[in-house]
Amino acid sequence: MDSWVDGQPADALSLKDRGLAYGDGLFETIAVRGGQPLLLDRHLSRLAQGCSRLAITADQALIRSELLAYAAAMGEGVLKLILTRGDGLRGYAPDPSAQARRILQGNPPAAYPVVHGEQGVRLFPCTTRLSNQPLLAGLKHLNRLEQVIARSEWQDSEHAEGLMLDRVGRVIEGVFSNLFLVRDGVLITADLKRCGVAGVMRAELLFQAESLGIPTQITDISLDQLQWADEVFVCNSVYGVWPVRAYAALSWSVGPLTRKLQTIARALLDA
Amino acid sequence: MDSWVDGQPADALSLKDRGLAYGDGLFETIAVRGGQPLLLDRHLSRLAQGCSRLAITADQALIRSELLAYAAAMGEGVLKLILTRGDGLRGYAPDPSAQARRILQGNPPAAYPVVHGEQGVRLFPCTTRLSNQPLLAGLKHLNRLEQVIARSEWQDSEHAEGLMLDRVGRVIEGVFSNLFLVRDGVLITADLKRCGVAGVMRAELLFQAESLGIPTQITDISLDQLQWADEVFVCNSVYGVWPVRAYAALSWSVGPLTRKLQTIARALLDA
Repeated sequence: MDSWVDGQPADALSLKDRGLAYGDGLFETIAVRGGQPLLLDRHLSRLAQGCSRLAITADQALIRSELLAYAAAMGEGVLKLILTRGDGLRGYAPDPSAQARRILQGNPPAAYPVVHGEQGVRLFPCTTRLSNQPLLAGLKHLNRLEQVIARSEWQDSEHAEGLMLDRVGRVIEGVFSNLFLVRDGVLITADLKRCGVAGVMRAELLFQAESLGIPTQITDISLDQLQWADEVFVCNSVYGVWPVRAYAALSWSVGPLTRKLQTIARALLDA
Repeated sequence: MDSWVDGQPADALSLKDRGLAYGDGLFETIAVRGGQPLLLDRHLSRLAQGCSRLAITADQALIRSELLAYAAAMGEGVLKLILTRGDGLRGYAPDPSAQARRILQGNPPAAYPVVHGEQGVRLFPCTTRLSNQPLLAGLKHLNRLEQVIARSEWQDSEHAEGLMLDRVGRVIEGVFSNLFLVRDGVLITADLKRCGVAGVMRAELLFQAESLGIPTQITDISLDQLQWADEVFVCNSVYGVWPVRAYAALSWSVGPLTRKLQTIARALLDA
């Protein structure tokens, strides 16, 4: 399907766009089923938070209506929204009169092997560390060189994802997923106040777990804690939940809470 | 002057470009006088180093010849080269067959007040801290949200530049400049192994100082050291050297080594 720029079909972008110049913008990757953008409120909520923190002025109602219209035209697939600060003058100072630019791109449904969800995946031990920057932590912004470098660390198909630590060795997230572990019945995920992307599926699963009375904890996670986890899984808003079977020398069985949350994620993404 | 994309006049960019998607690329901002790109070898050397560290394959000889041709057509001004990893597939993994994309943009000469160079400037004390990421340190890459946020901290014209510290309080650089200080006749600038952009003018001034027998030191700089500096200045490859007169409660006179290096920089940029 054709891309849209500011609501119009387009295949090209102004060379003055600050998304290109500085990575000055945000993005969302949204699963679309039956013409509906899934988990839309959570995507829009994270986007609005990003706009607020980066002081990007954007018409959130217009973005919502465009996403709905584009998804309806797509039918099935993965919709990527890139929201940039728009065109720039020379230099880093934002032009206060610049309008945010909306770029919508449609892709076919993701073609991950079914076995990832059924049998679980192996995580590559990325040596690329996430740097700590509280001003950007949690946002899905366009400065993603750390992920590009990390994802370049492995080419084999043995590893479906890679695990990233921060610079002091805390366990943070996958390259394109969030990570959860289960220990003594508690669902645990990393605190993302210093780095990492606060995923939409992560937020949804925390909410679902709380609704089910499953205790949750958002905290710093050490490699030691990972080692002693009963269950480990990764998630995102496109593939749902993948159990983690192995990371470096560590290995886990696929556990019951992972399966329960996977079923919930699947239902949300099969909507 | 029209921009060029891969050697052809163009005003738009593929929406699939990874420079937009992830800030996956590098840039150089080059002063052009009399049809010549100034300090070209140093710009190309930093670019090549960036390509090597980010594993971006690009034809360096072609880039050089395009820069020369574009500068000749421009005559006077500021030439910006953006080199991206080219179009991407879905996801962070680089497409090994992708060709780097060359974007050349011409701007009029920078219009900074002459008084900045003559009387010196005041630096805004940015609260935005640079995060430490050795994998990217020194490179002029396209992930520049920290600079965008830092530059948004002040709007007044009292401050010509802002000073950025790293997360533990080391003095690193300006938002769009490198910083030097002089103490007991030694020319000192920050070690950029953890963060910062290794500026072309910084490299040139270090070289020039060594040629003149002036002792130089590349080291970690504390705010205490800044306080006790005899002279302070900032530099880049467009404006040359600006003496620093004040930063927060600190102030300095314009010193003789600053003036000497400013004269050298001016000669290089008036070539």
